[in-house]
Amino acid sequence: MKKHNFYAGPSILSEYTIRQTADAILNFEGTGLSLMEISHRSKQFVAVCDQARALIKELLHVPEDFEVVFLGGGASLQFAMVPFNFLETKAAYLDSGYWASKAIKEAKLFGEVQIVGSSKDDNYSHLPKNYQVPSDADYFYFCSNNTIYGTELHEDPHPGVPVIADMSSDIFSRPIDFSSYGLIFAGAQKNLAPSGVTLVIVRKSMLDKVSRPIPTILNYKTHVENESMFNTPPVVPIYAALQTLLRYKELGGIEVIHDMNKQKAALLYEEIDTNPLFKGTVTCKEDRSLMNVCFVMSEGYEHLEDEFDKYASEAGMVGIKGHRSVGGFRASIYNAMPIASVQALVDTMRSFAQLKTQK
Amino acid sequence: MKKHNFYAGPSILSEYTIRQTADAILNFEGTGLSLMEISHRSKQFVAVCDQARALIKELLHVPEDFEVVFLGGGASLQFAMVPFNFLETKAAYLDSGYWASKAIKEAKLFGEVQIVGSSKDDNYSHLPKNYQVPSDADYFYFCSNNTIYGTELHEDPHPGVPVIADMSSDIFSRPIDFSSYGLIFAGAQKNLAPSGVTLVIVRKSMLDKVSRPIPTILNYKTHVENESMFNTPPVVPIYAALQTLLRYKELGGIEVIHDMNKQKAALLYEEIDTNPLFKGTVTCKEDRSLMNVCFVMSEGYEHLEDEFDKYASEAGMVGIKGHRSVGGFRASIYNAMPIASVQALVDTMRSFAQLKTQK
Repeated sequence: MKKHNFYAGPSILSEYTIRQTADAILNFEGTGLSLMEISHRSKQFVAVCDQARALIKELLHVPEDFEVVFLGGGASLQFAMVPFNFLETKAAYLDSGYWASKAIKEAKLFGEVQIVGSSKDDNYSHLPKNYQVPSDADYFYFCSNNTIYGTELHEDPHPGVPVIADMSSDIFSRPIDFSSYGLIFAGAQKNLAPSGVTLVIVRKSMLDKVSRPIPTILNYKTHVENESMFNTPPVVPIYAALQTLLRYKELGGIEVIHDMNKQKAALLYEEIDTNPLFKGTVTCKEDRSLMNVCFVMSEGYEHLEDEFDKYASEAGMVGIKGHRSVGGFRASIYNAMPIASVQALVDTMRSFAQLKTQK
Repeated sequence: MKKHNFYAGPSILSEYTIRQTADAILNFEGTGLSLMEISHRSKQFVAVCDQARALIKELLHVPEDFEVVFLGGGASLQFAMVPFNFLETKAAYLDSGYWASKAIKEAKLFGEVQIVGSSKDDNYSHLPKNYQVPSDADYFYFCSNNTIYGTELHEDPHPGVPVIADMSSDIFSRPIDFSSYGLIFAGAQKNLAPSGVTLVIVRKSMLDKVSRPIPTILNYKTHVENESMFNTPPVVPIYAALQTLLRYKELGGIEVIHDMNKQKAALLYEEIDTNPLFKGTVTCKEDRSLMNVCFVMSEGYEHLEDEFDKYASEAGMVGIKGHRSVGGFRASIYNAMPIASVQALVDTMRSFAQLKTQK
């Protein structure tokens, strides 16, 4: 049976990325060696890393004054690295969910943190609105897509101070206006590669400005100066990332992918809004994520939750259980998710509703 | 042509690890999904991670009061995490080479560092000897195997304070006496897995003792408490690590592997010591590494270095160029290196010498 992979992350990757990586693990570019056992300083792998960084700049139209690096340690390491590198006195944070609040916790170890907006009291069911960022903040930090709650900020903010964004779950899903950004980071395991590598895009003029000493490995400058080769990078994830990027280019670029994402999300939200058994959890429709679609059983149908979970599972749906803090269901429909799989989920929701409303 | 992979790291892995990982990337344990796109919280992957941690305890006979965790960020991140977590006032470091000196640099950001011994003036061609570790040091730090210089400490030190060791390039190569250790770490890319994961074995009583606040992700306690699942771990490298560990168990355990390593190293050092064209670079034979065998052309034959490099390359030897700070050649013969490949290198050295001394 065909499986439809709706995991929130690590999550679906393109068939191209999967096949290319499996092949390279057996024989990397005709070297007769596995991708897993090749030196990161071999000319073949240096070319992979350089090509991946160049393709990211090309696909996202990254301005000249930014640099692209790959780091290890996961996006959670960035929660500490960001204030380590940039928080001199005060930073502004937007509390839009679980991951943003984790970043806030770490920043407080380094200086004053001003939470400029929060939707915590509404269980993060919408994005904070009408907030003011103080002009003397070192930076403004936000998480662009909140995987757990299914909210996403669809436009790049311009608060008058450098913007730092955790784009782990929506990078490469839409074009980015870099004009106000100081740094963007993204764990790879949604729209790029298997887990184990974090993409960082940093404006070079942001580097080397705080007064505290920074351990070498935690200083962004180290990685920019060493072109992602300060220490041994995660070779397999970077190779897989390159394959994904090549696939994005072949598809026509991020603008084309953005249109596909809007179509896929519209298809699923339309079903949620019209199917009597289900309802969306995000209270402001303009905040609905194109990546993570959260829904629960409608009032009066709550008792059918486990039954639908089983029914969908038997139809090949994998990973649609919602996070415990929201409940219900979450369909993560990242770039690599084919519209046919979204349609399969829609069909499953529809046939389940027919089954239940006929009785 | 058969390739013999002598890379220093990332480096040779067993055929078993390579094939199993390639298969899992196409279909992970019959899930119909790739290992690269499976949730780290899926029951299948949690079982992989737990089994790998348990096998490490079993194979290395890790005492009960230690915990095993997998971290991202590379061994270089440990250079900062070690003093962040353990350096309250003063730490003792042994300066045995490039990687030890990198660790010393980071420790100095956190407190007083006493370098108790150094062989820097001899270009690290032997290990520092007859050093005294002050009894009031928070810990004693050393690097057990120096990849660049080909030196290795073959016995576990007992200096009277907790010992912290970077075993990146010789972990699993020999049994370990844990009695004096506080923490052992090892980047995976020599004897365990592809790059992207770092193994940490930490004594639980070492945790939570310094007074400084530690960012959550940089606190070993976080990872111990969350059993390596605080954040998304590097899934592919951990799966590959499990395959390597299963292979080690099948071979008969670390004691058997240690014997194999001694045989392989003896074969190559014997050739170096008897072949008139070559000589070893380590000045104390008891410090010679079983993992990285460093040698140069003998006096009078220096002009043949490039020619031997080409000759060996044509015979299928990959990655034997020495590090620029030592020059000459370095054959890295980690656990996965078959003795047949060591023999192939020995034969190549011998036939080259015959070719050159016949003239």
